[in-house]
Amino acid sequence: MNVNGTPHRTIWLADDGCTVEIIDQTRLPHEFIIVPLRNLADACTAIRDMWVRGAPLIGATAAYGMALAMVGDASDEGLTNAYDRLFETRPTAVNLRWALDDLKALLTPIKPDRRVEAAYKRAADIADEDVEICSKLGDNGKPLIEAAWEKRGKPDQVNVLTHCNAGWLATVDWGTALAPIYKAHDAGIPVHVWVDETRPRNQGASLTAWELGQHGVPHTVIVDNAGGHLMQHGQVDLCITGTDRTAASGDVCNKIGTYLKALAAHDNGVPFYVALPGPTIDWTLHDGVKDIPIELRDGTEVTEIMGRAPDGTVTTVQLTPDGTNAANYAFDVTPARLVTGLITERGVTEASTEGLAALYPEYASN
Amino acid sequence: MNVNGTPHRTIWLADDGCTVEIIDQTRLPHEFIIVPLRNLADACTAIRDMWVRGAPLIGATAAYGMALAMVGDASDEGLTNAYDRLFETRPTAVNLRWALDDLKALLTPIKPDRRVEAAYKRAADIADEDVEICSKLGDNGKPLIEAAWEKRGKPDQVNVLTHCNAGWLATVDWGTALAPIYKAHDAGIPVHVWVDETRPRNQGASLTAWELGQHGVPHTVIVDNAGGHLMQHGQVDLCITGTDRTAASGDVCNKIGTYLKALAAHDNGVPFYVALPGPTIDWTLHDGVKDIPIELRDGTEVTEIMGRAPDGTVTTVQLTPDGTNAANYAFDVTPARLVTGLITERGVTEASTEGLAALYPEYASN
Repeated sequence: MNVNGTPHRTIWLADDGCTVEIIDQTRLPHEFIIVPLRNLADACTAIRDMWVRGAPLIGATAAYGMALAMVGDASDEGLTNAYDRLFETRPTAVNLRWALDDLKALLTPIKPDRRVEAAYKRAADIADEDVEICSKLGDNGKPLIEAAWEKRGKPDQVNVLTHCNAGWLATVDWGTALAPIYKAHDAGIPVHVWVDETRPRNQGASLTAWELGQHGVPHTVIVDNAGGHLMQHGQVDLCITGTDRTAASGDVCNKIGTYLKALAAHDNGVPFYVALPGPTIDWTLHDGVKDIPIELRDGTEVTEIMGRAPDGTVTTVQLTPDGTNAANYAFDVTPARLVTGLITERGVTEASTEGLAALYPEYASN
Repeated sequence: MNVNGTPHRTIWLADDGCTVEIIDQTRLPHEFIIVPLRNLADACTAIRDMWVRGAPLIGATAAYGMALAMVGDASDEGLTNAYDRLFETRPTAVNLRWALDDLKALLTPIKPDRRVEAAYKRAADIADEDVEICSKLGDNGKPLIEAAWEKRGKPDQVNVLTHCNAGWLATVDWGTALAPIYKAHDAGIPVHVWVDETRPRNQGASLTAWELGQHGVPHTVIVDNAGGHLMQHGQVDLCITGTDRTAASGDVCNKIGTYLKALAAHDNGVPFYVALPGPTIDWTLHDGVKDIPIELRDGTEVTEIMGRAPDGTVTTVQLTPDGTNAANYAFDVTPARLVTGLITERGVTEASTEGLAALYPEYASN
């Protein structure tokens, strides 16, 4: 999507055909900095230090990391070493492992002198495939926004509420939850987005607000507490969020607080949609609330916050009294009964075992 | 309640019998600073600059402000001037006006040379009456916590979730929502409090965490997004919040986000109580969601936040991209259907017109 009026992806090949470039997302929204990745070590740092984040983008970065590694050492030993070092950067990231396995399976049977070319080609394909999936997902979600707008008699503004960042910054382009919003905006539908700031890491206030602003989509940041009040007063036409993990039953595990917004939507008759690439569904899970373990992260993400000080420096300030204990659950699970529908690259479906099985018969039968 | 092991109120008469002392609450939780109020101007500053906040404490400070004014000028002109200057500090605060009207009615018929003594006496009575109401409210709410603890077989911990700050800092002592918690803790019931940080002004993370910590009540700060997840997993035994405005129907207007917690409590069978002094009920209101106007405050409370920088200075940092628009609704309304009960100084009652009328027949018949 656009940054300063120029289309960008989150990862791309530089003009030299070898260097990979990314955006250092830890510096957003206060600084827009493009970082060149020139070798395996650079790619490892980018993933480990979360310069890139979001499952699809981590996968694409890992794939390009394998390509960069092959430039340095395309031997079998170099291949194994690259796999291991990249895998260690974020061992729990499913897409990271998937991309590494894919590249390893591709490169192992190829002679070392052909591996560089093959790896770059495959990394580019992985990035393009992600863009294609997100674009289709956006095309499928756009009519929901359009219908909500038309239902209200095409007012000046149709209001979508989103939580966290499931935008193009978390993918290679378009995003998941934000893809329908970008498609609607680009088609001239007057969409306005309520952006939950999304404590504790504030991905809404920093990343979602930044990318919507850069692309020119009207939006307003609100605290996570505000969505219920807005829905009570008819100020939200629909909600769209992403999901980190989706059960075969349609339960969705997403950033902490998603469940509260789904409850408010249900209480006020506001449609609540979740956007996801079909391949991310976990077909082995049938009760999200019971079966999905929730990561308990460091409490300092709650007791401290980063922002830009009056002197322009980005700094961290403490919010609580010294020694205060904080609990930091990263995700929650929204039961399928509160989800109006799932937006996927194959279409929109009911959040249920039947709904998902109808769209993905080849997986559901497993 | 205790600060550093010593009992405190939020406002008291200094040893000289004339100076009034308060805690500068804007400096909490990072600094505990006692400020002397020596004259009318000091009292006006304390209220206007929110060194004191919370309806009961504002009322008590206004009453003492009238006493301080009488020391300087006890003439009829001095009385009128004191009333006007104090009223202007926060003209929308109901308790402020109530206290000023009370003092004016008391002092006007008295000869000027007796006004100082009468004003100090009345201010002390107003403070004591608030302490008495909150203490009774705590006594009435304590059995709810005890019953929840016993119901679970007296485990090591009974978990109460609260939102915002309805503690002793918002009153003269004990607080409203926190009064039952202090009473339970002081009686040896192992109460643990989940403290919602309460964005945007973070009264939970700063004030509630501070006062619970000072009094030795175990507690854990969480982001406002987390309560739903905790309730889904049996980690909350009951919720208790305060209320800024209560309708005769039992609908409660409280800090933004209260409604979302009430929805989660309802969805998970967790009792949701609201604590309030009966005199704060607005008997003219019968539909809280429709009839209570919600204050839209400055968006910078959302886009910026105050905390303590690594160098020890308390500073404000910007969280959003430059120029980001933010909407800042200060309160929301929780419909009575989601409220398990109202805890008052007269007892616990159903959140309904009938429930309230039974406890307060003298007002309900109006």
